[in-house]
Amino acid sequence: MIKITFLPDKKNIKVNEGATILEALESVGININTPCGGKGICGKCKILINKGITTATLIEEELLSEEEIKEGFRLACQTKIFKDTIIEVALKIRLDFKKVFSSNLEGDIHRIKNNFFLCSNLKKVFLDLEKPSLADQRSDWERIKNGLSLKKIENISNLKVPVEILKKIPDLLRKSDFKITVTLQNNEIIDIESGNTTKNSYGIAFDIGTTTVAGYLVDLVIGEEISVVAKTNPQIIHGDDVISRIGFAQQHKKGLEKLQKEIVNTLNEIIKENTQKAKINRSNIYEVVIVGNTCMHHLLLGLNPSYIAPSPYIPVIKESLNLKAKDIPRLALEPTANVFILPNISAFVGADIVAGILGICMWKNEKISLFIDLGTNGEVVLGSKKKMWTCSTAAGPAFEGARISSGMRAVEGAIDKVKIDNKSIDYRVIKDVKVRGICGSGLINLIAELLKLGLINKSGKLIDREECSPELSEEIRKRIIKEQKANKFLLVKEKETENGKPIYLTQKDVREVQLAKAAIYTGIKILLREVNISPEDIQKILLAGAFGNFIDKESAIRIGLIPQLPLGRIKCIGNAAGTGAEVALLSERMREKCQKIAKKVKYIELSSRPDFQEEFTKAMFFNFKV
Amino acid sequence: MIKITFLPDKKNIKVNEGATILEALESVGININTPCGGKGICGKCKILINKGITTATLIEEELLSEEEIKEGFRLACQTKIFKDTIIEVALKIRLDFKKVFSSNLEGDIHRIKNNFFLCSNLKKVFLDLEKPSLADQRSDWERIKNGLSLKKIENISNLKVPVEILKKIPDLLRKSDFKITVTLQNNEIIDIESGNTTKNSYGIAFDIGTTTVAGYLVDLVIGEEISVVAKTNPQIIHGDDVISRIGFAQQHKKGLEKLQKEIVNTLNEIIKENTQKAKINRSNIYEVVIVGNTCMHHLLLGLNPSYIAPSPYIPVIKESLNLKAKDIPRLALEPTANVFILPNISAFVGADIVAGILGICMWKNEKISLFIDLGTNGEVVLGSKKKMWTCSTAAGPAFEGARISSGMRAVEGAIDKVKIDNKSIDYRVIKDVKVRGICGSGLINLIAELLKLGLINKSGKLIDREECSPELSEEIRKRIIKEQKANKFLLVKEKETENGKPIYLTQKDVREVQLAKAAIYTGIKILLREVNISPEDIQKILLAGAFGNFIDKESAIRIGLIPQLPLGRIKCIGNAAGTGAEVALLSERMREKCQKIAKKVKYIELSSRPDFQEEFTKAMFFNFKV
Repeated sequence: MIKITFLPDKKNIKVNEGATILEALESVGININTPCGGKGICGKCKILINKGITTATLIEEELLSEEEIKEGFRLACQTKIFKDTIIEVALKIRLDFKKVFSSNLEGDIHRIKNNFFLCSNLKKVFLDLEKPSLADQRSDWERIKNGLSLKKIENISNLKVPVEILKKIPDLLRKSDFKITVTLQNNEIIDIESGNTTKNSYGIAFDIGTTTVAGYLVDLVIGEEISVVAKTNPQIIHGDDVISRIGFAQQHKKGLEKLQKEIVNTLNEIIKENTQKAKINRSNIYEVVIVGNTCMHHLLLGLNPSYIAPSPYIPVIKESLNLKAKDIPRLALEPTANVFILPNISAFVGADIVAGILGICMWKNEKISLFIDLGTNGEVVLGSKKKMWTCSTAAGPAFEGARISSGMRAVEGAIDKVKIDNKSIDYRVIKDVKVRGICGSGLINLIAELLKLGLINKSGKLIDREECSPELSEEIRKRIIKEQKANKFLLVKEKETENGKPIYLTQKDVREVQLAKAAIYTGIKILLREVNISPEDIQKILLAGAFGNFIDKESAIRIGLIPQLPLGRIKCIGNAAGTGAEVALLSERMREKCQKIAKKVKYIELSSRPDFQEEFTKAMFFNFKV
Repeated sequence: MIKITFLPDKKNIKVNEGATILEALESVGININTPCGGKGICGKCKILINKGITTATLIEEELLSEEEIKEGFRLACQTKIFKDTIIEVALKIRLDFKKVFSSNLEGDIHRIKNNFFLCSNLKKVFLDLEKPSLADQRSDWERIKNGLSLKKIENISNLKVPVEILKKIPDLLRKSDFKITVTLQNNEIIDIESGNTTKNSYGIAFDIGTTTVAGYLVDLVIGEEISVVAKTNPQIIHGDDVISRIGFAQQHKKGLEKLQKEIVNTLNEIIKENTQKAKINRSNIYEVVIVGNTCMHHLLLGLNPSYIAPSPYIPVIKESLNLKAKDIPRLALEPTANVFILPNISAFVGADIVAGILGICMWKNEKISLFIDLGTNGEVVLGSKKKMWTCSTAAGPAFEGARISSGMRAVEGAIDKVKIDNKSIDYRVIKDVKVRGICGSGLINLIAELLKLGLINKSGKLIDREECSPELSEEIRKRIIKEQKANKFLLVKEKETENGKPIYLTQKDVREVQLAKAAIYTGIKILLREVNISPEDIQKILLAGAFGNFIDKESAIRIGLIPQLPLGRIKCIGNAAGTGAEVALLSERMREKCQKIAKKVKYIELSSRPDFQEEFTKAMFFNFKV
């Protein structure tokens, strides 16, 4: 066994000879950014070896500069360890996703809550029971049932009790002097506690994204969210999109099991942090609602996702599922807790979109709206109460910072807003620290600014310094730097960055954004055609996603991500899926509604559309009409 | 680790230094007779150490003869092993319970079957499904549901599918070219198989006794029993009655878990042997019915049995339970298989008695009958279709051979029938081999014969040789042997026994039988009083139990085990509980009936009866009126 020490954490771990640094990082619980899934393509997992430097591999020689190799930089996914080693892992590449999700739907969710507030079949009943005697030899269970019957609980005769609860009953009854609280869900006992605990009743809603997993703890008595925790999906180490995850499940022995374990562990961490923050007992969590894309849905349940990926894209199940916590191996909740999993729409439009439609009330809106969820995939829904159409676009994770030279997620040190005029550049950094990179909203803003100044042309080319408008100041002009055959734009000078290296927007970065925005826009265009309406008919555009919160609407229009509409019709709404999951948690009527929503949404398979390629090519161009 | 070899099996095992031989036997799967539960009281677990002889303990010195200790005999429960050892385990003490249970109810069960034959909600449906395409992107589950709907299966919209089945679906569908067989139970999918397997549908009924566990494999398509396997309950190592088992669960860390494991392992062995004998696939077992006494019921489910034993004798649950195989940890059946557990009546009248009442059709008999189950406990039920009364008697395991000097179970080498006239003794040995001991039916027969000859008097005393009738031959008279202050009767001379030692009936043996028969008879008497009828009102006596098959009716009357009635009214019926369990397996209507039966039977708590002690004392005397 070889010892590896990670700095600055000083975390130690022993691994087998020949393990990669990436595997060691994973074992020790440090999640880093590996957009290519550890395949040695993206070169993002750069770490610094302080002690125990290895010979660089061919891939490392290709992806790292000579200087970097000399200094001891290596790629975590490529370097195998054969002796004790000390490694520095820069903050920049870490996925220390501490930012708590917030939704701009607060007003809406209060309205929804008031409409459907605590429409729940969950009941907690306190019982002060008679003690057994030779004259009263009722079984413990009969005693409880009779007690409930005196409290006028319905359907006593059909009441079910799981073996897990029966196991707790005899000792608990006697320990608590026959004063207990019984929790009922529909016609089943799901918990039994000592004394009167009728006020302790909680639920948790999970939104499992490809990149981020969020858990919302809700007090079911008062109907309020009491704590939120978000974490990076640890599966990210196997690649940043669902296709890589499916590949991992297929190509590795027990791959599916590993992915399932990773996601359940994350849910467990979120449960733990939430219950600690809220100072509640996890055994009082009786209701769980889970949303996620179809792939995450399958991985969580241990369903083989293999047939999602290739045509004709077939999921195992789309329907909603009513489960118990024990149906999800290792989930650290009482085995009898209820788990409701929202339905999927298709292989690439999942339960998170159903939750979104629920959360933004699209399902009861008379007017036509356009709902765009900018996650790792870009899902688009168009329609109204009457009918909805949806498609999934292969937008890729560019807006999450992946595949972008200085891209990063919207965390501390990320530029999330950029303003460039003729003479100067201004930008905003999250938490106002030294710059570490640029996140999705900053990127959209930056490209829009460069388009405005004409530094990026219609086809997406970063123009030469000489081609610039004569009015442009030397300060800006100087920032265009020729490298090999392409140009790059200097956004941040070295003295302002955390690692002392300048931050550029490269031609390749622009191409990535073009591909992403073209994918989304093509989806919108084809849906409009399917519904036979024009962009002007859209009364509201709702931009959702963890990174949708901060997107500058004008910039989004300028780069052609969304149709040009009055800004008042556009709203950035944060994590709509999480909001929808909370609504479903609070209301069983809304859970039933989900199944109806999923059936009401027509899925359009873009890959089978003859007009797709043409529209996509057109959408690659930048739209200058503002 | 120390190596122990057991002869004649030549089974080896490695155990920790200081382990007892009993523990080693248990680990290697050899079950031996330990009526006292390994407490060093009964001296029954005698084994011969061939190599590695140990110093005898004080208990061994007391319970074994000097000669035996010299030869190397020790007690398995007392001897601890500290070096490699070779041990001979005589057949006599083994519980090689190979005899298959048989019921004398064959005519009845056929009648029952014809009445309720295959009243089941289990359905197997073959589907030849269309393959998916871009034009048909239904999920796998939707495809199956639509297929079922075309076959006119009801309640498709509410059809449930457990996660376990969902996991199997995607690969199975494609492997079987979309030709599958779906198994439905009520509104749930419980199995899915490749190809057409509609003919493979099985169920298993278990009767879990304190001493013996039997499993009846039934073909649910043709409604016939196809294999039966019976095994010794391995918990017997912790004592031969339910009170010792409860004590073990309370006094040992993880005691309950250990007892549960032991019983589930036995069920698994029975499943394995049955499926091998019948050459069927265990995954085609969809229905399980379980009966047993209340203690076995609790131990199987992992329910704390502590409050069953002390007054006021409270079980956790008496109601029937509809479970899944996965609710019983480690049960080696498909997790989705249905498990129905019959209801209990009280702490000491269990589901086996409900099954017995079902099996003998007492619940629909207009006439009054008396049902006695001579298991390790002796349960008595009196009544008719209208109403039934029951009690449990602390009969003890004397009729199973325990606590009797040469007692043994009704297996190979046991005397099961005895005839003594003035001059000679005749007996029957099971399988006609050398005598190993005497079983319950032989014991009842023997005592009845000795009562007839006046060698046992009314109070149960084995009389002195001199007190015998002058007409008695010298041959018989010689067999009365004075030992210390009491007499014993020589039943078998040494040359006719397996171990070359004579077999006696001791005064203590007679006392044990007196206690047992007095307990049963007192139960009967008190029930008669409760119902306010006289013995003559009983139209039928049904003697059930593994040892009830062979009991001589006249002898049973003579010793006062049952009331004196015309022999035509008495029937020995073998294992009625097993028969009832099979009926419940075949018919869901009968499962519902069980719950009604359990409610219709009034439990009489003998310990709270003021007349109990007086009746019991009276019943200790032998009844000479034949």
